[in-house]
Amino acid sequence: MNSFITTATIEDEKIVLEDVKIQVMNFNPSGFKEIVVEDFEDCLIPLNSKGVTWINVEGLENQRVIKKIAHHFGFHELLLEDVLHKDLRPKIDFFDNHILILLQMLKYNTEKREMESEQVSLVMGHNYVISFQEEAESDVFGGIRNKIRAGGNKLVRSDSDFLLYSLIDSIVDHYFIILEHIGDDIENLEEKVIENAQSEHLQKIYEMKRDVIFTRRSVYPLREILAILEREEVHQITKETRRYLRDVYDHTIQIMDAVESMRDVISGLVDLYMSGVSNRMNTVMKTLTIISTIFMPLTFVAGIYGMNFDNMPELHYHYGYFWVLGGMAIILVIMVFFFRKKGWL
Amino acid sequence: MNSFITTATIEDEKIVLEDVKIQVMNFNPSGFKEIVVEDFEDCLIPLNSKGVTWINVEGLENQRVIKKIAHHFGFHELLLEDVLHKDLRPKIDFFDNHILILLQMLKYNTEKREMESEQVSLVMGHNYVISFQEEAESDVFGGIRNKIRAGGNKLVRSDSDFLLYSLIDSIVDHYFIILEHIGDDIENLEEKVIENAQSEHLQKIYEMKRDVIFTRRSVYPLREILAILEREEVHQITKETRRYLRDVYDHTIQIMDAVESMRDVISGLVDLYMSGVSNRMNTVMKTLTIISTIFMPLTFVAGIYGMNFDNMPELHYHYGYFWVLGGMAIILVIMVFFFRKKGWL
Amino acid sequence: MNSFITTATIEDEKIVLEDVKIQVMNFNPSGFKEIVVEDFEDCLIPLNSKGVTWINVEGLENQRVIKKIAHHFGFHELLLEDVLHKDLRPKIDFFDNHILILLQMLKYNTEKREMESEQVSLVMGHNYVISFQEEAESDVFGGIRNKIRAGGNKLVRSDSDFLLYSLIDSIVDHYFIILEHIGDDIENLEEKVIENAQSEHLQKIYEMKRDVIFTRRSVYPLREILAILEREEVHQITKETRRYLRDVYDHTIQIMDAVESMRDVISGLVDLYMSGVSNRMNTVMKTLTIISTIFMPLTFVAGIYGMNFDNMPELHYHYGYFWVLGGMAIILVIMVFFFRKKGWL
Amino acid sequence: MNSFITTATIEDEKIVLEDVKIQVMNFNPSGFKEIVVEDFEDCLIPLNSKGVTWINVEGLENQRVIKKIAHHFGFHELLLEDVLHKDLRPKIDFFDNHILILLQMLKYNTEKREMESEQVSLVMGHNYVISFQEEAESDVFGGIRNKIRAGGNKLVRSDSDFLLYSLIDSIVDHYFIILEHIGDDIENLEEKVIENAQSEHLQKIYEMKRDVIFTRRSVYPLREILAILEREEVHQITKETRRYLRDVYDHTIQIMDAVESMRDVISGLVDLYMSGVSNRMNTVMKTLTIISTIFMPLTFVAGIYGMNFDNMPELHYHYGYFWVLGGMAIILVIMVFFFRKKGWL
Amino acid sequence: MNSFITTATIEDEKIVLEDVKIQVMNFNPSGFKEIVVEDFEDCLIPLNSKGVTWINVEGLENQRVIKKIAHHFGFHELLLEDVLHKDLRPKIDFFDNHILILLQMLKYNTEKREMESEQVSLVMGHNYVISFQEEAESDVFGGIRNKIRAGGNKLVRSDSDFLLYSLIDSIVDHYFIILEHIGDDIENLEEKVIENAQSEHLQKIYEMKRDVIFTRRSVYPLREILAILEREEVHQITKETRRYLRDVYDHTIQIMDAVESMRDVISGLVDLYMSGVSNRMNTVMKTLTIISTIFMPLTFVAGIYGMNFDNMPELHYHYGYFWVLGGMAIILVIMVFFFRKKGWL
Repeated sequence: MNSFITTATIEDEKIVLEDVKIQVMNFNPSGFKEIVVEDFEDCLIPLNSKGVTWINVEGLENQRVIKKIAHHFGFHELLLEDVLHKDLRPKIDFFDNHILILLQMLKYNTEKREMESEQVSLVMGHNYVISFQEEAESDVFGGIRNKIRAGGNKLVRSDSDFLLYSLIDSIVDHYFIILEHIGDDIENLEEKVIENAQSEHLQKIYEMKRDVIFTRRSVYPLREILAILEREEVHQITKETRRYLRDVYDHTIQIMDAVESMRDVISGLVDLYMSGVSNRMNTVMKTLTIISTIFMPLTFVAGIYGMNFDNMPELHYHYGYFWVLGGMAIILVIMVFFFRKKGWL
Repeated sequence: MNSFITTATIEDEKIVLEDVKIQVMNFNPSGFKEIVVEDFEDCLIPLNSKGVTWINVEGLENQRVIKKIAHHFGFHELLLEDVLHKDLRPKIDFFDNHILILLQMLKYNTEKREMESEQVSLVMGHNYVISFQEEAESDVFGGIRNKIRAGGNKLVRSDSDFLLYSLIDSIVDHYFIILEHIGDDIENLEEKVIENAQSEHLQKIYEMKRDVIFTRRSVYPLREILAILEREEVHQITKETRRYLRDVYDHTIQIMDAVESMRDVISGLVDLYMSGVSNRMNTVMKTLTIISTIFMPLTFVAGIYGMNFDNMPELHYHYGYFWVLGGMAIILVIMVFFFRKKGWL
Repeated sequence: MNSFITTATIEDEKIVLEDVKIQVMNFNPSGFKEIVVEDFEDCLIPLNSKGVTWINVEGLENQRVIKKIAHHFGFHELLLEDVLHKDLRPKIDFFDNHILILLQMLKYNTEKREMESEQVSLVMGHNYVISFQEEAESDVFGGIRNKIRAGGNKLVRSDSDFLLYSLIDSIVDHYFIILEHIGDDIENLEEKVIENAQSEHLQKIYEMKRDVIFTRRSVYPLREILAILEREEVHQITKETRRYLRDVYDHTIQIMDAVESMRDVISGLVDLYMSGVSNRMNTVMKTLTIISTIFMPLTFVAGIYGMNFDNMPELHYHYGYFWVLGGMAIILVIMVFFFRKKGWL
Repeated sequence: MNSFITTATIEDEKIVLEDVKIQVMNFNPSGFKEIVVEDFEDCLIPLNSKGVTWINVEGLENQRVIKKIAHHFGFHELLLEDVLHKDLRPKIDFFDNHILILLQMLKYNTEKREMESEQVSLVMGHNYVISFQEEAESDVFGGIRNKIRAGGNKLVRSDSDFLLYSLIDSIVDHYFIILEHIGDDIENLEEKVIENAQSEHLQKIYEMKRDVIFTRRSVYPLREILAILEREEVHQITKETRRYLRDVYDHTIQIMDAVESMRDVISGLVDLYMSGVSNRMNTVMKTLTIISTIFMPLTFVAGIYGMNFDNMPELHYHYGYFWVLGGMAIILVIMVFFFRKKGWL
Repeated sequence: MNSFITTATIEDEKIVLEDVKIQVMNFNPSGFKEIVVEDFEDCLIPLNSKGVTWINVEGLENQRVIKKIAHHFGFHELLLEDVLHKDLRPKIDFFDNHILILLQMLKYNTEKREMESEQVSLVMGHNYVISFQEEAESDVFGGIRNKIRAGGNKLVRSDSDFLLYSLIDSIVDHYFIILEHIGDDIENLEEKVIENAQSEHLQKIYEMKRDVIFTRRSVYPLREILAILEREEVHQITKETRRYLRDVYDHTIQIMDAVESMRDVISGLVDLYMSGVSNRMNTVMKTLTIISTIFMPLTFVAGIYGMNFDNMPELHYHYGYFWVLGGMAIILVIMVFFFRKKGWL
């Protein structure tokens, strides 16, 4: 899994910003700069300025750009690999000058009807945070950008660790949306299954179960990361920010609780579905039984008087036919009464 | 999730007490005062008095009032957010001058047939406790109010930490009522399912399962909170009160045990239900089989003698018809005997 | 849950020994005294004697007596409440001069066909043990009484901690009887279910499951209590007695293992039952199918020759009727052969 | 559970070796002695010799012998009880001069078709090991005896702790045989269930489940014992032997893993079985449905032309009968074609 | 399990390299040597050279060779046994001069349709790593060999601990391939089961479940090994390599997460399958019920007019026959309409 990329040769090279979007913001309590990055070197300007610099890289296809950044900031070879590798388990790693946090952002792909995850890597240094996102489209960090532009809040007054917290907070908050989505799905399905259990409902339940398993897999390591960030004597995080991180930590636990509850509820739904199916089967069987129980004896009676024996006195009674019809009617009434009593009709 | 509320502007403002009910009690071993709050400033009077002050705020809609209180008592921004946010996981947070405890009080909404939770926040300072409730109607603290009025008991002789304990105790005790409610439901359902399993029973089981999951989710963090309050070197809690808190802690464990047992019992109920359904199916199928097994051969015999062959000697026997009827009766008797032996009749 | 009982007023009062039975024994290596308690003061006599005093209180209805004892021995208010409260989770509590141990003794109520528990509280002081039992009838401590009377054994040679151990040991041993009871039930049911699964069997399984859950709930805290008593630096317990307590501890673990195994076995029983039911259904369906498959074609053939077409040559063959009967017999034989081959007959 | 046996009186008594078999071996690097025990005193001879003495006692019925040994070696009262008691949970206990290890040896009783356990107690002192076995017949220690006789290996060169290790190793190795036995059973059953699920298969699965639960219950404490022996600062075990014990420890973990896997596999087998049963049901139902669907319409048609209306033109067509027969054949072909398409035939 | 092999006699013997393939590589930052081993002594040449030597032994059948190596490098008797024994649980063992790591490499045997494992043992000494593989064919270490040949990378610049890491990394990476294989199988099966649940699908699910259980059993100890290697103060591993090992550790956790998720997904698949089967049953039963419900009444009507009463006025109506046929058609239409409404057609 380690491809031994050599970053040495990249050093001096001029690189083109293709397939990648870089946004750079620098802020301090008294103001902010937003830089349109046209050339790679543009990223590096604000680092010398006062305040905190946030470099947001969207798109990981153009590995040259990533490697250039890695080289500039002195990233460890393993850090670079982790950022470029796409399906990693969320984790936190401490390096000499920076902290790496890998997260998974969940998205619901409505086409494939599947949960999907996008890796977000955050690297926090002394006066900067670099965020790497896989895709450019889904902008979960918009709110933070607006807060920086607005100014006058805790974010712009704080250090890079509070920016890191804000980014993590945005991602964790996004999980709540996913949970609500699944929660709504469960409720919808619940009603449908109770009303009329169809086999496509079980497929839907199965898909939901997969989604919940998927969510669970990415939220568990998230909790571990926050526990490490908050509890361990991490000198890069100030005491004040730690309090905020504990808040996010509480949220991840809340998410985990919700996910576990959903698992239980879904297993209850399977029971409901199975019961719905067997109830329908019961209805079918009852119908069959009622029909058979009524018509078999009647047909038998008709069969009796269809026999061709020479000596069958009833056949010659003047009202024999009508007596028999009357008898059949009585049998019918008795049967109906019997089924009513059994609660089958 | 943090909305960066600025409390600064609220400081001097005159605020109206709408959508909120504030009750203030001050007590010491020798007596108590109960203040009708008409103006916000009324809340603050008793704080200078000797003894413990309890401010009970019902209704969180009027955020200005809450923020005013927060400002006066010097609450941290995060504390304020937690109080105002409604669906948080129970938690405990230590600040410089006060402790925040978030709890969930469970209620059974009989209309929606669902469990509901109401957040209760308790803030304990050096000589006061402030309690925030979402709704004004359900008064779980009535017993404590009466004890203060009665006087002459441990509560009025103790510090604010014992008042805090008493409030938590009231809330935990309320869980036992919920558990009894669910326990009774389970027993009722049990009988019904054993007698005659209907598909609405499974829906009820499913609802009960949701309720149990819901209860479980709110009681687990409760236990953690009490463990922290009781065990950790929390200097705000006296040794004597700690002993009482351990008692409440034991109750939360008892609740958890009960909840776990209920989960197991409910899964047993599902088995009972499923078995009831398949037993009914068995009865239906047996009826069908009995009817078919009796009438098919008889109808066949009648069919034989309904054939129009020229040469069928039996048809011309004088008592042929009666012999056949007799034969049919014998077949019937054999069949009934056979089913009796098989235990189907 | 705390009712703030004031013990002060009880102090000097003369109290009547109604609804309560008190037995007092005092022993030392050289002999024993057994006191018939007619007046409350009788209890207190032997405390001044040399050796260990055991006060056994049966019946908790007469709260005055209990409170009197509590007052005399200087029990904490919470200890008193715990003893009087009946359905508490087993627990251990250390007070300045004594240790409180709450246990649950299991009994099988044969009428209600349910497990029931009776709370037993043990308070050990420096030279006495007081045991409180809910009901007077079930005497689990008889063996200990006999040992004291017999003398010459470790019990009479030891301190109050060994008496405490002996009492706990009696209660834990009683669990093994309950387990054997359930174990026998499981084996009986096993055979019955294998032979012929009836719906009442599932009800029995369900009841057994409840019993096991009930047992489990009371044995888990028991283990915790013994772990605390044995491991922690509890100065009231001598090193020698600690070794014996570890033995009891091992027994509680053995009980827990057995309970867990039973849960697993019971879930296997449910499978067996379900399979029994569906096998019976299979038998029913096979019967129906065999009957239908045999008689439907035969009846059809009879129907053919019951038609009234003018031109049906077979009808006029002299042996047509007999040929048809023979053909039907052949169909019958083929069918029977076919079902034999399929293993349905 | 403690019967307060007095060992004092046994001291001087002459005892008979009935219902018990004692084998004594003494060995050192340079040779070994094997003593035929005819009198109890014979056991004690080699203890004064150089080297390690191994006393193997088979049969626990003759309690006088056991007590005599206990008395001689200065066993604690509780140790004696544990050895004599038969169904104890495996455990380890440290006494002043010796270590007691209780183990369960599993055997498969082919008659009862049940797993059975036999308690083996090992007491290791400074230069001896005493092993107590319930039954004389199953000699799991034969290999060790042969090694001693052969000489020239690590066993004869080491102290009593290595003999202890060797004995434990023999017992743990025996578990692998049991596991293989169950593993083979599972594979056999697997094939049978896939081929044709019979209700006796579920009984077999259920029995296997019990066996696995039984094995699990005895292997878990085994692991704990070895963990204690190996890890704790047990001065009686040399560092070299500790390394060997860790090896046995690894084996117990391997056994536990295998047992857990078997549990999972067995639950999968239940699914397989249930599916086999419902597949057979499906086949039965299909047969019934095919027969009914073919013959009901045909019989109806025959019924039509069996009606006795005066005016039924078809009856008088010359080829009417043959047209109808042809029509029936066409219906039959259509039906068969339809079932083929549905995959029912 | 320990066979007390004596290695002493092997010392001077000349041994033949049969059934075993030995590859030796020596490398340092400036170059590498690759030695074709024709004689056993060839292995030992590079050990005196500068740099790291890697001896790869494929095939364990020729025990003389293995013992010769063991003797030369001074392996402990237990280490030798572990290497030769084939089905051991992965483990790590520290000896005075070397570390032993036992791993299981998973392979999917496409013939038996079963997972299989091959033991790989790694022994790391001060300037060498020896790897033992069971079979020669599957070369999972090819990539590493190429890296050494290529040179100029971290591997050739590092010590033997980095080579050890690289070997472990290759094996762990191989697990991802197995997981993908199972993951694809699950997805394929998913589609098939949703489309048309066949009984062979459940067998496939069952096999997959076994594979997952198998994988799980070998990946859990793997995680433990890496945790020990990475965390414990293992002086043989440099700080830099430890960072890389943590990376592999993260991968094993990722594998474990995936395996757990698969277990959950597979249990969902069983539900899907069961539902598919009962849906098909439902279809069969509906067909039967529809046919019966339509033709039973019609056949009954035909039976009525097949009776032979003298006085049956309808028989003599001129259009009686046609009226009856029309009535039957109406009944048919009503039935079809009724089933449509019920959603059965």
